[in-house]
Amino acid sequence: MQIRIGNGIDFHRLEEGIPFWLGGVKLDHHKGAVGHSDADVLLHAICDAMLGACGLGDIGVHFPDTDMQYKGIDSKVLLRRSYNLVREAGYWIGNIDTTLCLQEPKIKPYIPKMIEAIASTLGIPRADVSIKATTTEKLGFVGREEGVMAYATVLLTKH
Amino acid sequence: MQIRIGNGIDFHRLEEGIPFWLGGVKLDHHKGAVGHSDADVLLHAICDAMLGACGLGDIGVHFPDTDMQYKGIDSKVLLRRSYNLVREAGYWIGNIDTTLCLQEPKIKPYIPKMIEAIASTLGIPRADVSIKATTTEKLGFVGREEGVMAYATVLLTKH
Amino acid sequence: MQIRIGNGIDFHRLEEGIPFWLGGVKLDHHKGAVGHSDADVLLHAICDAMLGACGLGDIGVHFPDTDMQYKGIDSKVLLRRSYNLVREAGYWIGNIDTTLCLQEPKIKPYIPKMIEAIASTLGIPRADVSIKATTTEKLGFVGREEGVMAYATVLLTKH
Ligand SMILES: [Zn+2]
Ligand SMILES: [Zn+2]
Ligand SMILES: [Zn+2]
Repeated sequence: MQIRIGNGIDFHRLEEGIPFWLGGVKLDHHKGAVGHSDADVLLHAICDAMLGACGLGDIGVHFPDTDMQYKGIDSKVLLRRSYNLVREAGYWIGNIDTTLCLQEPKIKPYIPKMIEAIASTLGIPRADVSIKATTTEKLGFVGREEGVMAYATVLLTKH
Repeated sequence: MQIRIGNGIDFHRLEEGIPFWLGGVKLDHHKGAVGHSDADVLLHAICDAMLGACGLGDIGVHFPDTDMQYKGIDSKVLLRRSYNLVREAGYWIGNIDTTLCLQEPKIKPYIPKMIEAIASTLGIPRADVSIKATTTEKLGFVGREEGVMAYATVLLTKH
Repeated sequence: MQIRIGNGIDFHRLEEGIPFWLGGVKLDHHKGAVGHSDADVLLHAICDAMLGACGLGDIGVHFPDTDMQYKGIDSKVLLRRSYNLVREAGYWIGNIDTTLCLQEPKIKPYIPKMIEAIASTLGIPRADVSIKATTTEKLGFVGREEGVMAYATVLLTKH
């Protein structure tokens, strides 16, 4: 068995009055994330970790934010396409672990739905997807609710 | 052998005149970390990485900071309890690697004691615990000594 | 086969009018990174991830920034020496994945040269080195172009 590991980090600005897509789920919040796609910081970090683990570049290479076909796109589509590239390279997901850095809102009630959205998009067991969340204790741009950050690590295997 | 990887990120504010617990060791410094427990950012990041690797949620799920039984608690207790959960799921620690982001004080002299504290709390060899440290070159809230960040990755194995 | 994972995080300030070494390549940019060595944040993060994976401390332990022999040194030398230490401990690189957090300039055109520089310095296949890049969407010190951050994960194997 061959094993590879990858990491992904993504950042998006938060603005008043726009939808907040996170982990494939729409949050109920007065702010949302800004981006060319639906700006789902968690799914983007997972895409990057998967692509990085097999040396396939990053999400910006495959789905450039200058390409109108990705304007407003559901990031679950990008997640599925990223995993298709990984599968074509012969790899399977071992497990995905993620950490969200976000001051508001409380993410805990959304986590089961996010895990379900990610696992079903990828066609993997829910037990292989983990989402953790932390505030930054009001420090920095995350603490000032100007932005959100997500971090992902992925283990891939090839048989 | 099954393998899983996890990551943990934690942040705490620094304030004048309170104890600074880090890596299970009390630092000699004019500031300390603020939190519901003893605010040990390094041990919390390790807990999260272990829990995340096996899909057991995060430290906030198991030891909520609204629960008075964890007020001021020694984070070594949380570390041991987190690893108990991991062991119940059938996993063992392969290795732990961590990075502390902290402007002051110099951490290097404390690292052997921190490694000893973590390894003995978990009952694993010291060689399987690594602590690295970096400043942020005075950038951001870490650089302004307003806060401290820790990052951990953990490899778990099941036989 | 034994497996270990490591992580590395590094930060450097950016200043006007100095060379910008990144991933072993000199960028064409009006700012550059400040440091005791050539301040190559990406190579330093990789050194730390390799050293951390086998519990060998960090780059500051082996190549202190107070030691004049490292003043202005090409970080490719530090990368090679770090891997020598890892090899002496019996480990080989499985794969390296990295993320650069940088507002300007666009890194994409430099990535093939960076991968070539790192792979040839380490004597490993280019397919085992991955470099991804993201801006922070103008957030924080990276977004204000005051600094640059790099993050690396490394998988090591022993046979
Ligand atoms: Zn994104
Ligand atoms: Zn904490
Ligand atoms: Zn450096």
